[in-house]
Amino acid sequence: MTKSNLGRFFEDFRVGETIRHATPRTLTPAEGKLNIALTGSRYALFSSDEFARTSGLPTAPFDPLLVFHIVFGKTVPDISPNAVANLGYAEGVFREPVYPGDTLAATSDVIGLKQNSSGKTGVVTVRTKGVNQHGRVVLDYVRWVMVNKRDAGASAPQEHAPDLAPAVKASELCLDDRLDFARYDWELAGSPYAFEDYAIGERIDHVDGMTIEEAEHQLATRLYQNTAKVHFDALAQRSSRFGKRLIYGGVAISIARALAFNGLANAALILGINAGRHVAPLFAGDTIYAWSEVLDKADLGRCGALRLRLVAAKNRCCADFSLKNDAGEYDASVILDFDYWAAIPKRS
Amino acid sequence: MTKSNLGRFFEDFRVGETIRHATPRTLTPAEGKLNIALTGSRYALFSSDEFARTSGLPTAPFDPLLVFHIVFGKTVPDISPNAVANLGYAEGVFREPVYPGDTLAATSDVIGLKQNSSGKTGVVTVRTKGVNQHGRVVLDYVRWVMVNKRDAGASAPQEHAPDLAPAVKASELCLDDRLDFARYDWELAGSPYAFEDYAIGERIDHVDGMTIEEAEHQLATRLYQNTAKVHFDALAQRSSRFGKRLIYGGVAISIARALAFNGLANAALILGINAGRHVAPLFAGDTIYAWSEVLDKADLGRCGALRLRLVAAKNRCCADFSLKNDAGEYDASVILDFDYWAAIPKRS
Amino acid sequence: MTKSNLGRFFEDFRVGETIRHATPRTLTPAEGKLNIALTGSRYALFSSDEFARTSGLPTAPFDPLLVFHIVFGKTVPDISPNAVANLGYAEGVFREPVYPGDTLAATSDVIGLKQNSSGKTGVVTVRTKGVNQHGRVVLDYVRWVMVNKRDAGASAPQEHAPDLAPAVKASELCLDDRLDFARYDWELAGSPYAFEDYAIGERIDHVDGMTIEEAEHQLATRLYQNTAKVHFDALAQRSSRFGKRLIYGGVAISIARALAFNGLANAALILGINAGRHVAPLFAGDTIYAWSEVLDKADLGRCGALRLRLVAAKNRCCADFSLKNDAGEYDASVILDFDYWAAIPKRS
Repeated sequence: MTKSNLGRFFEDFRVGETIRHATPRTLTPAEGKLNIALTGSRYALFSSDEFARTSGLPTAPFDPLLVFHIVFGKTVPDISPNAVANLGYAEGVFREPVYPGDTLAATSDVIGLKQNSSGKTGVVTVRTKGVNQHGRVVLDYVRWVMVNKRDAGASAPQEHAPDLAPAVKASELCLDDRLDFARYDWELAGSPYAFEDYAIGERIDHVDGMTIEEAEHQLATRLYQNTAKVHFDALAQRSSRFGKRLIYGGVAISIARALAFNGLANAALILGINAGRHVAPLFAGDTIYAWSEVLDKADLGRCGALRLRLVAAKNRCCADFSLKNDAGEYDASVILDFDYWAAIPKRS
Repeated sequence: MTKSNLGRFFEDFRVGETIRHATPRTLTPAEGKLNIALTGSRYALFSSDEFARTSGLPTAPFDPLLVFHIVFGKTVPDISPNAVANLGYAEGVFREPVYPGDTLAATSDVIGLKQNSSGKTGVVTVRTKGVNQHGRVVLDYVRWVMVNKRDAGASAPQEHAPDLAPAVKASELCLDDRLDFARYDWELAGSPYAFEDYAIGERIDHVDGMTIEEAEHQLATRLYQNTAKVHFDALAQRSSRFGKRLIYGGVAISIARALAFNGLANAALILGINAGRHVAPLFAGDTIYAWSEVLDKADLGRCGALRLRLVAAKNRCCADFSLKNDAGEYDASVILDFDYWAAIPKRS
Repeated sequence: MTKSNLGRFFEDFRVGETIRHATPRTLTPAEGKLNIALTGSRYALFSSDEFARTSGLPTAPFDPLLVFHIVFGKTVPDISPNAVANLGYAEGVFREPVYPGDTLAATSDVIGLKQNSSGKTGVVTVRTKGVNQHGRVVLDYVRWVMVNKRDAGASAPQEHAPDLAPAVKASELCLDDRLDFARYDWELAGSPYAFEDYAIGERIDHVDGMTIEEAEHQLATRLYQNTAKVHFDALAQRSSRFGKRLIYGGVAISIARALAFNGLANAALILGINAGRHVAPLFAGDTIYAWSEVLDKADLGRCGALRLRLVAAKNRCCADFSLKNDAGEYDASVILDFDYWAAIPKRS
């Protein structure tokens, strides 16, 4: 029996089990700088220790999406090496900022299983927790993924449907106790627009486009220690449905968020992930554009929070906010429909 | 009205205004290491804390060109998102070394405006200052750039021609008080040649060539948080004059300087930028070669300084020092003509 | 006479001389993170300071292969800029772990010279030492390389055949005094298999594949400050035997070792290099697979050591452990045959 790990198949999961993932990771400033080099992110809060201190934090924290990708990456060898598709996210809460020097590990609880009617695949739902060196949860979120069965004839595990919230409630969002925007420098942040300036239903075209190369998404996905072979093995992918390497969906989220700086520069700090769908695959050579819609607003006291829909499209600019047709089908250009909460300073 | 920023057009600038740029940046060792990975730089002073300490400095400072690109990057969203061409640099002085942990921000004073005869574009000249967390200027330089008008019919802003020095005087160069080459290790530095060994008029072929990929220049330019869309949006560039992404000129400067190690290993520390011209565009797939000419020498007491012309060419080696033809036109291979001062130890 | 360095040719070497290489290098966490982004390495010992402390070390050390590439890179401008082929390694011993903040420099002793029968090239053998800021050797190894003669008519230097051990003896391996696997966390490390579980002769297919891009190997090789032009100058390579850039062999070693995590997750710490051969060239676009064979085992007291053969192949998966045909010739897919010792915890 070989000592290399082919990963779990659908029939190997059991509701209620907890999987402890390998390869803890100490984060250093280098991860943050690679994130800038890979996405072009310009949010001041993650770029400048001075700016972070002015906001009450001890030093610049990591971009929450980077933390998400690092935690997510750890789960891949156990949860999704045999995945067919990453289907969705829910109930994501960033519970405390992560700083250089922190070490993250991850566990996943299996909370849902449902075999598909074909009998060849099933949907696995897990709640993943990212935990720091003090044993505190810095992030938890639910994701569900379609996983191949090893043996189509194997009996289906007992079905269990998780009960998931349609969105994180504003009252469940976590703000660092020290966060304080009283001395916020709007010019250094890159935009004059405060919580009060955004209206529910408002849409923002983020204007800029970013073309992505094979080397770039591979570097990012390896940085996250995410090993899903669809991103790396061009030879094996030749015989796949797409015939080529697929870009990790998290790369699309992070590039779209970096583009969203232009219009949402003050909404740096993501607090929660309500939902997310990778609508269509992204490939090297594609150019990514993005737009946002304000779905909701919440006054958190020390600051505001915007609930934002981030839509990313490929090879088509977003000036017309294209999303779905009259039949409710996504436009062919749309690759990402992502729903999240972000903190934003109030003007007063 | 959208909250995303399309950037200033020519008619939006006013002589005398000061623009404070967004996204301060704390520099960490990671920026220096990415600079090595992206350029292949081998200057010992920026590579080894021990070597820097032997030279009197507290730790290895950043390569001044990296500092230049970081400061320059901040100005792009405000000054040149609608630029047609980056035309030139002058009066650049590196006023003090930048070390890991320093946070840089940038401001630009508009010092010159001149509408072109076509009425469709104009030249904007700014003096940009990079400022550290102590409020001290670490670098200032002048650059001028051709910017589109939003509306060709708009009236021209009042013309103002800045008065610029043809070169930085040696007496204006700044040496860190602690810099001391008395214990300089020529072998570890990689070359036996001292200030005394270089003659005015001497030319050096830097021999090696470096082919550049799309992923590489995009990583570098995003690391600098430079957002100019000509470098990133391949789809939009298809309808441009060149039909493809253009490489940020600073990438050409830094790669040429990394190649220049072979012949100028002891001239690591750039002190001033006298002039610079991006003669022709550089594209992914091009191979860069470089040669240098000693334009002038100055004895700064504790060390010498060489005034150097750095010429970079694409897809043609520089063994014959090709530059201009008899009519004074640049050879088609030349992409960069850059004039700078660098410190170099004296032998004694 | 130009000040740029064309490098030594075969007739320039003398047995017994010691060459001190340029560009000392202070290593920071950024090198480790770039190594992860470039290879996808997941060994917990190099990824997590907490995991390293649980293993008795003060903080996460660098992957020994990264140390090897950094030391190797320094030697290239002096030893192998005019090399035809990198032929082999022997007697490599990692004498102590290297940590962030350490500064490495390198020297090479010429220990063997043999002109080839053609008279146009010769084999140079050097023993290279990587030395830290305390003057202690952290790594030494022997490599031999085929180098061009400047002048085929030049008389051959005196021939000298070095006496090299076929493998490093287990008794010569160096373990850090503090290393202690008593509290080893097998789940966090990613595999339940201990020293006792591996049998001599056992073979492991590492399953996964990794396609490599030009930008990726150039970034890695520049990170190592390795300047060999065959890796970087696509224009000059057009007229070479292969017509394109060749990937530095060290990149193949590191990617194969990252793939080897899947099956050898607990054998993180390489202690010695017995032999190594770059069997066939690797090019951008190739997909790398790997398998390992347990050649020997040694009980080092506090832990075990496995002597492993790491075989990497291109564009062909390794499920059948293809290596050589009946005539003893390597399969056309094999690019690397690497023989090394690695520490591995014992179960008890």
